[in-house]
Amino acid sequence: MTGTPRVEWIEVGPRDGLQSWPATLPAATKVGLIHDLLECGFMRVEATSMVHPKWVPQLADAEAVLEALHDRLDQLRVLVPNVKGMERAVEAGVRNVAVTVAASESYNQSNLNRGISETLHEIAEVSRLGKSAGVQVDASVSVAFGCPYEGSVSAAQVLDVARRLVDTGIGEVALADTIGIANPSQVEDLVQTVRDALPAVRWGAHFHDTRGIAIANLLAALETGIDLFEGSVGGIGGSPFAPGAAGNICSEDALYMLEAMQIETGIEVERLVDVARRLETTLGSPLPGRLHAVKNEPPGRATA
Amino acid sequence: MTGTPRVEWIEVGPRDGLQSWPATLPAATKVGLIHDLLECGFMRVEATSMVHPKWVPQLADAEAVLEALHDRLDQLRVLVPNVKGMERAVEAGVRNVAVTVAASESYNQSNLNRGISETLHEIAEVSRLGKSAGVQVDASVSVAFGCPYEGSVSAAQVLDVARRLVDTGIGEVALADTIGIANPSQVEDLVQTVRDALPAVRWGAHFHDTRGIAIANLLAALETGIDLFEGSVGGIGGSPFAPGAAGNICSEDALYMLEAMQIETGIEVERLVDVARRLETTLGSPLPGRLHAVKNEPPGRATA
Repeated sequence: MTGTPRVEWIEVGPRDGLQSWPATLPAATKVGLIHDLLECGFMRVEATSMVHPKWVPQLADAEAVLEALHDRLDQLRVLVPNVKGMERAVEAGVRNVAVTVAASESYNQSNLNRGISETLHEIAEVSRLGKSAGVQVDASVSVAFGCPYEGSVSAAQVLDVARRLVDTGIGEVALADTIGIANPSQVEDLVQTVRDALPAVRWGAHFHDTRGIAIANLLAALETGIDLFEGSVGGIGGSPFAPGAAGNICSEDALYMLEAMQIETGIEVERLVDVARRLETTLGSPLPGRLHAVKNEPPGRATA
Repeated sequence: MTGTPRVEWIEVGPRDGLQSWPATLPAATKVGLIHDLLECGFMRVEATSMVHPKWVPQLADAEAVLEALHDRLDQLRVLVPNVKGMERAVEAGVRNVAVTVAASESYNQSNLNRGISETLHEIAEVSRLGKSAGVQVDASVSVAFGCPYEGSVSAAQVLDVARRLVDTGIGEVALADTIGIANPSQVEDLVQTVRDALPAVRWGAHFHDTRGIAIANLLAALETGIDLFEGSVGGIGGSPFAPGAAGNICSEDALYMLEAMQIETGIEVERLVDVARRLETTLGSPLPGRLHAVKNEPPGRATA
């Protein structure tokens, strides 16, 4: 195994997790969660999204959340779906934003209500605004491993979109398995392809655990040289009331694994487990992650 | 990735899953489940255990289950904890049994009520009975990656027990992560060590998903050359009423991954998913696996 000695983990639960949670948490609860996450050692927490409240009412309080965390803004990232969102982010003093574009035309149309080219034009403007305001703009390529409308997505499609992102001046690009359809062989192939083609990019990976193999996909990405991952505390994401809606890869489970593999992450895993346990209480629903549910009891008899 | 073109999967849900389920299923329900599993293409299903009903009342009906499946006995495996169990298995016409011994003295004492050496003496007798009756005897080394009482377990301990198993004539040995404490680096190291030391053994791996990384451990084992795995339909095992008690690696999730990686398994995954869904209804509790819960719905907005 060609291990990576150090990995950066971006905690995205407050955004990618809570945006699809059926209940909307009070801003103060979100602020407390983000604060607790920062205390675990994350260098970056994706705190919220500057999306129109019509689309994601759960995150309508973005400015209030950021205002309450004004002394931690250098550790927060905010999703911005368009120029309007970027203007709000700059106004709020955000130092790092993420934009997203799909690898497939149909998904981009469904998710962002416009075509890939139009989205990339918008991203170019966001990137320009970022440069002038000193805000780092990262990107993710969604449905990079498969699309719910078009099925398979080729490496060429992903690479084409990634090249156009890089042309706007973006330097950090996450490959997102939005619907949790990737497999380790595909991860290895895609990562190899994009890294060979665009070696100057800092590549990240963002997995969802729809089919229970997100952590294997992460291992494959790690072995192929990825050192930047995103995940959510407790594995939140999707809805507990919609069976089959799947969460992000669980941060503490993955970080536990990385730590056990003697890879540096800078995160206090036990502390993150405590955050997950409190979040489970807050949300009032079992979270998908496993580690937070472990009790140190002797196992039963006759097991192997 | 040094892939393995073909993998054998032993379905152990009816034994390792149901033995720890709080409710005891009627024999007819077990028979129906095992029959359904065989129809998915498994060459071997671990059907039950010849353990004393005092220890595992859930499997007290072993003979009745086997009798009802008398025309499929060549595809069933039965756990035998001792000579008495082996005699029962031979009497029932079983063609393949599994024995287990722990890599740590404390766990062996706790699980089997005797020391490792005493267990290995018993296994030698089981193996002798197997040879004379034409019954294949496989072994698993439990807590091979860590012990709840002793903590870390060295490769030397595992290898010592494995050598003594081989000395009794056993040719197939599974490394069992009984408490779900393994990590991919450790899996790679241990598999490499035991394969180098005992290359004639057919090595298998048996993971539990206690900490959410069983599928990554499987990937690591696969990459290190293991082509024999055990798991349970739906990821059953542990108890739904005891939070933290963790099931086996979920067969259909893992087999879905292997299929996506173009590794032959001989199993119809979609059919197995249906078995998991029916089992969830039978057990009346959500199962830990993910794939059976997937619905093909378009994802929501603004996700990446």
